[in-house]
Amino acid sequence: MNVMIIGAAGMIGRKLSERLAKDGGLSGKPIERMTLVDIVAPSQPAGFAGKVGLETADLSAPGEAARLVDLRPDVIFHLAAIVSGEAEADFEKGYRINLDGTRALFEAIRLAGEGYKPRVVFTSSIAVFGAPFPETIGDEFFSTPLTSYGTQKAICELLLSDYSRRGFFDGIGIRLPTICIRPGKPNKAASGFFSGILREPLAGKEAILPVSEDVRHWFASPRAAVGFLIHAAEMDLGRLGDRRNLSMPGLAATIAEEIEALRRAAGDAAVKLILREPDPTIMRIVAGWPRAFDTKRAEALGFRADASFDALINAYIEDEPRARG
Amino acid sequence: MNVMIIGAAGMIGRKLSERLAKDGGLSGKPIERMTLVDIVAPSQPAGFAGKVGLETADLSAPGEAARLVDLRPDVIFHLAAIVSGEAEADFEKGYRINLDGTRALFEAIRLAGEGYKPRVVFTSSIAVFGAPFPETIGDEFFSTPLTSYGTQKAICELLLSDYSRRGFFDGIGIRLPTICIRPGKPNKAASGFFSGILREPLAGKEAILPVSEDVRHWFASPRAAVGFLIHAAEMDLGRLGDRRNLSMPGLAATIAEEIEALRRAAGDAAVKLILREPDPTIMRIVAGWPRAFDTKRAEALGFRADASFDALINAYIEDEPRARG
Repeated sequence: MNVMIIGAAGMIGRKLSERLAKDGGLSGKPIERMTLVDIVAPSQPAGFAGKVGLETADLSAPGEAARLVDLRPDVIFHLAAIVSGEAEADFEKGYRINLDGTRALFEAIRLAGEGYKPRVVFTSSIAVFGAPFPETIGDEFFSTPLTSYGTQKAICELLLSDYSRRGFFDGIGIRLPTICIRPGKPNKAASGFFSGILREPLAGKEAILPVSEDVRHWFASPRAAVGFLIHAAEMDLGRLGDRRNLSMPGLAATIAEEIEALRRAAGDAAVKLILREPDPTIMRIVAGWPRAFDTKRAEALGFRADASFDALINAYIEDEPRARG
Repeated sequence: MNVMIIGAAGMIGRKLSERLAKDGGLSGKPIERMTLVDIVAPSQPAGFAGKVGLETADLSAPGEAARLVDLRPDVIFHLAAIVSGEAEADFEKGYRINLDGTRALFEAIRLAGEGYKPRVVFTSSIAVFGAPFPETIGDEFFSTPLTSYGTQKAICELLLSDYSRRGFFDGIGIRLPTICIRPGKPNKAASGFFSGILREPLAGKEAILPVSEDVRHWFASPRAAVGFLIHAAEMDLGRLGDRRNLSMPGLAATIAEEIEALRRAAGDAAVKLILREPDPTIMRIVAGWPRAFDTKRAEALGFRADASFDALINAYIEDEPRARG
């Protein structure tokens, strides 16, 4: 097995490469080679017996996609993207990286010839959906993104379906829930507080809650997200038919439920570190986000969400042993 | 008013330019200039008092979109596309013309600057939908095209929404039903018989019916389609919010209903000219097409379908006086 991860320096990319290094195989076959690609140098995963190639590349630059495809990976995880805020602030960069970069990859695969037909696992986003939403978003709800990032992801989903239908590769696009608990430092993303109000108190630090406790959102742990990616790489994609993109299962939880799970994991002292500072701007942004999904299709196809918010917190504590205060 | 029609040499483009020439105005303002653009030379519409520019251009060729946008049309009707069969047969040409050409137009508008913000009316297609369908396709059903053509149209819809949301232009995408009765000679499109079994008998000629009489489909006359385009150019697009693309109302009718309307219009002798020659290939293709839509939204926004199949046939007889046998 020759595996490539594009976007390997990101949080999910790192966790995926660590998991693959630990497993040593995919679909019951040993991984002989792992190529880690990102726009900044990715780091070597620990304890991997096979060969590792580290590549710094911008997919949207001429010839770069073809250079990567020349390595003929059997499985390509394409996680690379600039984030929502940056794609909104820089229109041209967003389309160049998130759309043209992905299309360049798909084109390089199509043009490779010689019967080359890899598995392509693409991470899409629930940002392909835009308010107003139904109570839960089902598997046939339409894409009406309200950001350029969501538009770019929705377009890549359509391309992935068409390239798969035409037989150029065997693709699947998975829409990840909001990742929680995101390890590391607080960032400026409007969604940052969903992780922050757990991560910071678990480390004995204060965290700001800018919205009310009845806000409901849709979550998956990094561990569950990596599980989705591995399952997407291993499953029989014939079961998808022509509908190659799907929303991943997640946990629908309110802030109040998050807080109660924190209390069970770390006690009242941790909960007291959450400072309520309502922020009308963040409240308005969050009001436009999807709250819950009906992911029957992904579940029937074997994708599994975290069992509970307690399990999600426990996964964080196990996976990030140095993150406790 | 400075109006541009891209794809002006096509059937709908010609009828639209004739209607605008006859009306002489749009949104209550006189049309001073009409620029007709196509990859083949468009023809001059009769009886137009204003200036007409005839342009032969391929939008996807470097600089061509900018050259057209330099004329600063107030309204751009973008109807140009290669058809479904050709986009399926020639993958690269389909993406170049239907996707890159449209994107080049949108980019040229974005880059024009100087506060230029035209109305853009884009013709999309019900090919953005792919089987399996619900009994009727509602306004929130997702796009899962089963052709490269449908994929290209769905992508352009997403781009149109995002460019409109960002304020680069004021866009609307309308998905036309199958046009019936299509004037002119029989063509090789799999959908050709829907028009052929009316058009040919009305001219005293035989026509082949390759499917069974219970096949149901979704229709609009050329006259109704032109009406949709004019309404899309004149209406207040603020009413669309961020959902800029919508399925147009149509007539859902079975082949049997078509035939009975033909009988009322032209008698048993005309109906006897329909030859039943079942074609398993066409039957299979047609089985994958949408049958009926719920177009509440478009109707609430003032788009009006043909009143009945009789009205649709009468519109053809009035608009194509030389087409009778």
